[in-house]
Amino acid sequence: MPYIEVNVTKGATNEQKAQLVEGITDLMVKVMNKNPYSTHVVIKEVETESWGISGKSVKRLRAEGNTANISKV
Amino acid sequence: MPYIEVNVTKGATNEQKAQLVEGITDLMVKVMNKNPYSTHVVIKEVETESWGISGKSVKRLRAEGNTANISKV
Amino acid sequence: MPYIEVNVTKGATNEQKAQLVEGITDLMVKVMNKNPYSTHVVIKEVETESWGISGKSVKRLRAEGNTANISKV
Amino acid sequence: MPYIEVNVTKGATNEQKAQLVEGITDLMVKVMNKNPYSTHVVIKEVETESWGISGKSVKRLRAEGNTANISKV
Amino acid sequence: MPYIEVNVTKGATNEQKAQLVEGITDLMVKVMNKNPYSTHVVIKEVETESWGISGKSVKRLRAEGNTANISKV
Amino acid sequence: MPYIEVNVTKGATNEQKAQLVEGITDLMVKVMNKNPYSTHVVIKEVETESWGISGKSVKRLRAEGNTANISKV
Repeated sequence: MPYIEVNVTKGATNEQKAQLVEGITDLMVKVMNKNPYSTHVVIKEVETESWGISGKSVKRLRAEGNTANISKV
Repeated sequence: MPYIEVNVTKGATNEQKAQLVEGITDLMVKVMNKNPYSTHVVIKEVETESWGISGKSVKRLRAEGNTANISKV
Repeated sequence: MPYIEVNVTKGATNEQKAQLVEGITDLMVKVMNKNPYSTHVVIKEVETESWGISGKSVKRLRAEGNTANISKV
Repeated sequence: MPYIEVNVTKGATNEQKAQLVEGITDLMVKVMNKNPYSTHVVIKEVETESWGISGKSVKRLRAEGNTANISKV
Repeated sequence: MPYIEVNVTKGATNEQKAQLVEGITDLMVKVMNKNPYSTHVVIKEVETESWGISGKSVKRLRAEGNTANISKV
Repeated sequence: MPYIEVNVTKGATNEQKAQLVEGITDLMVKVMNKNPYSTHVVIKEVETESWGISGKSVKRLRAEGNTANISKV
């Protein structure tokens, strides 16, 4: 019955999404003994101008090249 | 004051959305005695490649015709 | 596959929760043609000091008797 | 470490989003003593036909001019 | 910058939580090339009377021994 | 009509919660021209063993004194 919501900025490929869905489901089965058929993994993508860290949008941080302490991507 | 978030794969019509909003609001009023004017129902639609069940995306499960134990839609 | 999250202040009885779960699931089946076995309804209860409307907590609004324009409960 | 999710109907400009991100981050720093570099503010915009209040969508409420008791916008 | 929310019924041990946090973070780094220091994994536990599947609470489904098609746990 | 959810580790006082609710509501009114009576701010507190950053729980990171690059609190 678990429901896992992955919030991330836009840009994941379908292959990356498939790997996240498979990997997280495997974890729920192995670690928590959950039934995979009732395990839901949902990926919600957010535009970079709508995600802020340290008071600035990711879009602006990337434009400034100012991401060292915050995020690789 | 309740806030109800309906997460579902894409494809609902505006008529279906209207029925969900009306039906869920009615439930909050009848069952919980909530004021409808402060009852918010929000429908969030997710692409089928971003929703996974049993470790595979709904998009792939549908392509495989493999949805019997998982979901009608 | 839908996942419905009901956010509400604390105080629902188990009977009320059961009615919400049943009623919302019925709506998802009738309106959206979803399979009930993959329909998840989750109720998240929040303390009244942690829910704010119009800039004040529900706890304070109730103590002031100031809920006419906001919420019955 | 806080994660703040702002759910709102569509239509915010990038300038408005920037002000929300900056303002909410400042609050987390001043009120809660949080580190801004681990404070995430995410804005999720919802179509007006997918947001319901009082059992009707915001789209319909606005078309009816019937928003006095509900919301300015 | 990802934020992953794991919603699950109550009962996870701290060791299980640690494995989920570590495993999901590893996935975000390997699959998505995210910085682990900005990857947040949050586990939200829900009482079994507040989680419904197929229109009934998990608490009731378990009491009835009726969980075969729904969930192992 | 906005709904703002603040996710944070446990420990906020009622006074801090009141300041967050007031401050975020003011922002929604000033920046977005929203009606405060339909602006909901909800604070969800999470145990430190249920919030992970960099693959470790905040509880463990604090016990190790290892929070410099992650969060003040």
